[in-house]
Amino acid sequence: MEEQLIGNVLVAQSGGPTAVINSSLAGVITEALNHECIEDIFGGLNGIAGIMGEQIIDLAAESQQTVRALRHTPGAALGTCRFKLKKDQDYARVIEVCAAHNIRYFFYIGGNDSQDTAHKISEVSEKMGHQMKVIGIPKTVDNDLPITDHCPGYGSVVKYLASTIRELSADHEGMGNHDLVSIVEVMGRNAGWIAAGTVVAKRRNHSEDAPHIVLLPEVPFNAQAFLEKVKEVLKNNKYCLVVASEGLVDENGNYLAASETLDSFGHSQLGGVGDYLQSLVTNNLSDIKARSSKIGHAQRAAANCASLTDSNEAFMCGQEAVKAAVNGENGKMVALVRGDTDKYSCQTTLVDLKDVANVVKTFPANWIGEDKMSINYQFNRYILPLIQGEVELPFENGLPTFAHLAKNMVDSKLEHYEISK
Amino acid sequence: MEEQLIGNVLVAQSGGPTAVINSSLAGVITEALNHECIEDIFGGLNGIAGIMGEQIIDLAAESQQTVRALRHTPGAALGTCRFKLKKDQDYARVIEVCAAHNIRYFFYIGGNDSQDTAHKISEVSEKMGHQMKVIGIPKTVDNDLPITDHCPGYGSVVKYLASTIRELSADHEGMGNHDLVSIVEVMGRNAGWIAAGTVVAKRRNHSEDAPHIVLLPEVPFNAQAFLEKVKEVLKNNKYCLVVASEGLVDENGNYLAASETLDSFGHSQLGGVGDYLQSLVTNNLSDIKARSSKIGHAQRAAANCASLTDSNEAFMCGQEAVKAAVNGENGKMVALVRGDTDKYSCQTTLVDLKDVANVVKTFPANWIGEDKMSINYQFNRYILPLIQGEVELPFENGLPTFAHLAKNMVDSKLEHYEISK
Repeated sequence: MEEQLIGNVLVAQSGGPTAVINSSLAGVITEALNHECIEDIFGGLNGIAGIMGEQIIDLAAESQQTVRALRHTPGAALGTCRFKLKKDQDYARVIEVCAAHNIRYFFYIGGNDSQDTAHKISEVSEKMGHQMKVIGIPKTVDNDLPITDHCPGYGSVVKYLASTIRELSADHEGMGNHDLVSIVEVMGRNAGWIAAGTVVAKRRNHSEDAPHIVLLPEVPFNAQAFLEKVKEVLKNNKYCLVVASEGLVDENGNYLAASETLDSFGHSQLGGVGDYLQSLVTNNLSDIKARSSKIGHAQRAAANCASLTDSNEAFMCGQEAVKAAVNGENGKMVALVRGDTDKYSCQTTLVDLKDVANVVKTFPANWIGEDKMSINYQFNRYILPLIQGEVELPFENGLPTFAHLAKNMVDSKLEHYEISK
Repeated sequence: MEEQLIGNVLVAQSGGPTAVINSSLAGVITEALNHECIEDIFGGLNGIAGIMGEQIIDLAAESQQTVRALRHTPGAALGTCRFKLKKDQDYARVIEVCAAHNIRYFFYIGGNDSQDTAHKISEVSEKMGHQMKVIGIPKTVDNDLPITDHCPGYGSVVKYLASTIRELSADHEGMGNHDLVSIVEVMGRNAGWIAAGTVVAKRRNHSEDAPHIVLLPEVPFNAQAFLEKVKEVLKNNKYCLVVASEGLVDENGNYLAASETLDSFGHSQLGGVGDYLQSLVTNNLSDIKARSSKIGHAQRAAANCASLTDSNEAFMCGQEAVKAAVNGENGKMVALVRGDTDKYSCQTTLVDLKDVANVVKTFPANWIGEDKMSINYQFNRYILPLIQGEVELPFENGLPTFAHLAKNMVDSKLEHYEISK
């Protein structure tokens, strides 16, 4: 075994936050304290963009209370970015910053694009001769990372949305008279995992429960079939609850609703599918009331209904990333592996970052129902364990309280670097 | 004192549900069991429309578990309606149904329109010589009923939305770079109580906390002033969180966003203000990302973040309605009265239904900030007590469970009645 590197940790967060992304951060901080080869524990603010600007804080200086509170605090406590490193010069700058601060262990908590960034940092670091172990920690509500059984963040968004759908069902059951269509637009980009996950809201042996229709981006939208299904549901139910993925596409693969704005990775800004479907129903079915809701970013930040299983697994991913790096692993991502016994168990393994980077795992076809608007019951075995347990949220004066990092800045060591947009 | 009437109770729910409307129902059922003059406890399904159709269930036959679970179950367990009694014949039918089932105590849980209905039922009953005590029980997330200090349902929607805004703040704080505008569209119709209530999300002595801009229907919308304010907020903050009431109006009093559909009371269907503001920002401010969310009916059904104070007060209103009726009161609504000591206390009183019916209490001008887009700190004294305490929600297999009434139907005694639309 090669000699253990002695030096500092740098951990950063990237992409859209989740309800448990800070739990992974807490896992890194907590585990890093256990290893003598680790001296300082630094946090990079605002992802890779902040690191280029040497926006680095001393995480070991944060109080234990704060680190503990991170486990129930949504959003990215370190700040994140959607910045894409464009030039070799940008990557070189990141390595220079790491070298200047004696970073030997680099952890990047993020989704597809972020794992790609981590992969390149690992490569450039090696090429530049800076010895540094780079480990990716998975995070995304979309659950679209390959290889890992599921992603930290997914269980919580499903638990929150399914709870919300149960509440909406109670509301609609009392309001509808076979004439109410309620559309809930959910996140997930090009993968239907989130939309599909909401089917856990159905009680066992109550197939009439909501959601009645689930629209996935994996299935090209067919307006006629959708409207027929709505009519069929309303024959037997007082209301029809539709869960629609924000990334729905038509038969040509074009988004049903997308703005013309692209983010820095070239992805379309999604949103508006709910309004689209609401109009479709109103314009085509007479005497039907249609409502839509777009819960938006609140769904990925919903600490008030986070899954304890998810939060604990997110923490474990942070811990295991540190253990792996200290053991000399490099260029890997921590992945979750489900035990094959009936009773759910979950462990971690390491996968090559290059196998994860930029690959999107869509919702499996064999779990999609024959009508293409429902989810097979077998999926329940997959999803149910992920939403078990409730994260206890401390309330003060009637409202939940969250961690606020003190953010003690580490002194800069390099010249200012101009980031080109 | 007149002789106590001996007979049955009929309780029904009306209008849009809340997270605690069933807590009032549980209060009625629980209290009714205490009085010997009360024989059967009946529930009318689907409000006044269902009562005309003799859709009556035996509430005393429900299990104690179910009645207890009503205290945390959102939505109207009995079903509700937005039906407006149009003809004298309709009112006469309601009284005939009541007479046929020996209803001597009639309780109607609802908002403005429903209290008007209760008032007329009380009058017609007297005119027709059917002795029956009619008591209204207040309910509305909008908090727009007059005389009562506040309405059951309001505290819970505020607690939920303010919690959501804290979570969104944690999300946006990590995402924004002085370039993010997040618009949250909330309910409230023509009164700004809900939008205003969200300011409790600000931590004490943290005036920089979200929400940064609050738009009330009481203040005609001024696009120029709004955009200037957004720019000002973004100078000092990483993001600007805007809470917008669904019922915003322009300088001529026209809704900024309303569909052409009217409900049966002639009210416009509201919704879409968030999208409107999002476009306004995107089209007028360069390099600014705007997002909007419309939480929709989930906000009024959010049992997962309901206020214990609110739930308990809703229960108390149900209990007090029964006590009042048994004491011979008629044509009244239970109202909440706040104690005048520093420590919050709340009791009930009775007010004449005719003084409540169809009156809308808008948000007081003296609590609106000078810039017309903020709320004065004095309002905190009003709102904070209403969101205290958390309703404990039972979870089963990862999701909250709610009461489902067995709904044992009471035999019909009259001929079928055709309800004209």
